[in-house]
Amino acid sequence: MSTLLVRNATILTMNDAFDIVDGDVSVRDGVITAVGGDADDGRHDTEIDARGGFLLPGLIQTHVHLCQTLFRGYADDLPLLDWLRRRVWPMEAAHTPASLAVSARLAASELLLSGTTTVLTMETVHDTEAVLEALGDTGLRAVVGKCMMDVDSPEVPRRLRESTRDSLQESQGLVARWSARPGLVRAAFAPRFALSCTRDLLEAVAALSASTGALIHTHASESPDEMEAVRRLTGMDNLDYLAQIGLATPRLCAAHCVWAGDAQQGLLARQDVKVLHCPSSNLKLGSGVAPVVELLARGVSVSLGADGAACNNRLDMFEEMRLAAVLQAMRRGPGALPARDALRMATREGARALGLSTELGSIEPGKRADLIVIDRDRPHLATAPDPCSAIVYSATGADVRATIVNGEAVVRDFALVRLDRDAVVAEAREAAGALARRAGVV
Amino acid sequence: MSTLLVRNATILTMNDAFDIVDGDVSVRDGVITAVGGDADDGRHDTEIDARGGFLLPGLIQTHVHLCQTLFRGYADDLPLLDWLRRRVWPMEAAHTPASLAVSARLAASELLLSGTTTVLTMETVHDTEAVLEALGDTGLRAVVGKCMMDVDSPEVPRRLRESTRDSLQESQGLVARWSARPGLVRAAFAPRFALSCTRDLLEAVAALSASTGALIHTHASESPDEMEAVRRLTGMDNLDYLAQIGLATPRLCAAHCVWAGDAQQGLLARQDVKVLHCPSSNLKLGSGVAPVVELLARGVSVSLGADGAACNNRLDMFEEMRLAAVLQAMRRGPGALPARDALRMATREGARALGLSTELGSIEPGKRADLIVIDRDRPHLATAPDPCSAIVYSATGADVRATIVNGEAVVRDFALVRLDRDAVVAEAREAAGALARRAGVV
Repeated sequence: MSTLLVRNATILTMNDAFDIVDGDVSVRDGVITAVGGDADDGRHDTEIDARGGFLLPGLIQTHVHLCQTLFRGYADDLPLLDWLRRRVWPMEAAHTPASLAVSARLAASELLLSGTTTVLTMETVHDTEAVLEALGDTGLRAVVGKCMMDVDSPEVPRRLRESTRDSLQESQGLVARWSARPGLVRAAFAPRFALSCTRDLLEAVAALSASTGALIHTHASESPDEMEAVRRLTGMDNLDYLAQIGLATPRLCAAHCVWAGDAQQGLLARQDVKVLHCPSSNLKLGSGVAPVVELLARGVSVSLGADGAACNNRLDMFEEMRLAAVLQAMRRGPGALPARDALRMATREGARALGLSTELGSIEPGKRADLIVIDRDRPHLATAPDPCSAIVYSATGADVRATIVNGEAVVRDFALVRLDRDAVVAEAREAAGALARRAGVV
Repeated sequence: MSTLLVRNATILTMNDAFDIVDGDVSVRDGVITAVGGDADDGRHDTEIDARGGFLLPGLIQTHVHLCQTLFRGYADDLPLLDWLRRRVWPMEAAHTPASLAVSARLAASELLLSGTTTVLTMETVHDTEAVLEALGDTGLRAVVGKCMMDVDSPEVPRRLRESTRDSLQESQGLVARWSARPGLVRAAFAPRFALSCTRDLLEAVAALSASTGALIHTHASESPDEMEAVRRLTGMDNLDYLAQIGLATPRLCAAHCVWAGDAQQGLLARQDVKVLHCPSSNLKLGSGVAPVVELLARGVSVSLGADGAACNNRLDMFEEMRLAAVLQAMRRGPGALPARDALRMATREGARALGLSTELGSIEPGKRADLIVIDRDRPHLATAPDPCSAIVYSATGADVRATIVNGEAVVRDFALVRLDRDAVVAEAREAAGALARRAGVV
């Protein structure tokens, strides 16, 4: 049995009542046992003094691509479809199991240092097992999808093309193997987007998700060009097409939905499809701004993600919280998406999207101890009176003093514990340059 | 004579040729004497090893309100005019000389730690001398305006109302006294905006700026409500009105210009008015997104600022660079405002706005040594191949290892040198709470 005590925090529990309480959080074998007040019984293996800082549930990013972390800065200034064809696909094709592991470690380092404890990630077509294996050593909690792309297109590098059967078989194998393994990592189905997948593949994924309970992680209605291409191909709206195939279930995690119209917003609400909002990526690729206020008003679950480092180029969830809030202020007026709602999207809604609401997303006895401590002694944070405002509008990932996943401190005093930052950076520098050369993008 | 050497950097000179060179920068008595290669002659008083980091000109923010730093988090979720009437004006009225000094020190701490070396700031109506005095001790370079507000409106707290004559006399006195003093701080004229100022005042400011050469710092065309109110008052577009009065000169620094139409963009270009772009503030107050690409295409000088902590709520210039770039990508497509242009706005264009292009904005022999060192060993920065992309899209203020103003290192190893961070934070916490209580906003 291992025990952990976090002391002297202002605890944003993110429970149903949105309680903010002062005091300690006690953890036993990765599970929260007490919240608030003095929980120090003097028998804890590990103790973290939060010294008046904020304690939050670990942040949950529901849309990232860990494999693209090595592509950071190699794919700027391109719109979505060009960005895929000219940079991301060639670079994904050039990945090896070793470079995928390096990319996952680099991403995990950045994510944990900036307070993200759980991700839903879409990797590339091949060698996804290497990512799952690598993540096991990092301490990051993750749901990992092998990217599925069975449309035979000359625009897609040969290495990323696969048969429908192989795609399904490999994905199914990953889901089965990793649901049976203990640990923080499991697998999901990840058909890339409507344009990359045959209807046969998508129908089979719908059936497999229903029988296994595994999530489906995809992109939908991200950019006008993509919308138009899907309409040419199917005669339908992108989300209507996915629904017709049977994919629109509570297990569907649909990244972006920037161009979900009124009817499609109703569909997302009725079917409890999870929307994964990526505001930085949507701006940088010129895709647009998602109708988050409208989606939330309909009761749609909207959570947040940085997307990949190839289109962001940070993996800092604080940036996404802040941007989500201020972009809706621009669209619908100040207060349209208050700080508290942005914080909810980054925690509880992330857990809901992953089907993990009973385990993650709030600080309550019985939940897994995924926790972060935010320093408040810095000039940009010290005086803000409201914790939600301070965290969403003023904090950045660099203010995260400690990150705890499943009761284990993986960041302490702003430094990685499990991973060696300098070693990760050194291997990543070498791997990124070599990968770009293999892909021919330098 | 004092000397400084910065060693082993990747130097983004921001010179006309946009040269990026490796090596050292040598400084004597605050002036750059050599750039690039090995400049180590072994006789420097201070040496900073940039260890493979990026060396940039210090960032120049052309629109901030240091006095609002203590208001951070007290004024969220309100549109511009409500935000002024219900929060910012009551809080400005509650400022004392002591709280203004505290606010300036808190702001200077945050700014220097995040790589901003120069600001153009609009303070409040009263006690601006206290700000100028306080800044003298911080090491921040600043052009400070006493806010001018001579319209007698019941919406404005009594403490902020002043006669035309008093407003002019006090402003003129500050400009005269602080242009004669040595040091990094000087004064400018700062009529708040068209709605707060009589025509008489604005005409007198235009004349005084012409005779003294001092800058005029104001707000213009920020929000649709303000535009409409100016039109009701004057029968004209906001910028046309300022031009008619004679304010539209190269010395006019006009914050925002979000709603500058085609004709007004032409006016700004013809008259070489400087536009101060504040993307975070414009989103958070729901004002909109400025037509930066169009302004740049016409040759208008567009520089960047965080605006006040009451509407941002960070003073981190990296956030503004990034947001400026990605918002234009949203408006006009990826690449519409490349990273290099955002970096230019944050350095050279800031110097141009302040009329200090011969002294600041690039790293060249003969210019003042305002320099920052950005760490590259962090996971989110280590692999990006292009320095401009890395700095604009991936870096944050927390990556600034060293900040040098006028040849003096005011931040080293991520810590303040002149100021005592913990003391600044402690006095700021007390002052912010007391000020909010005096203003009745808690």
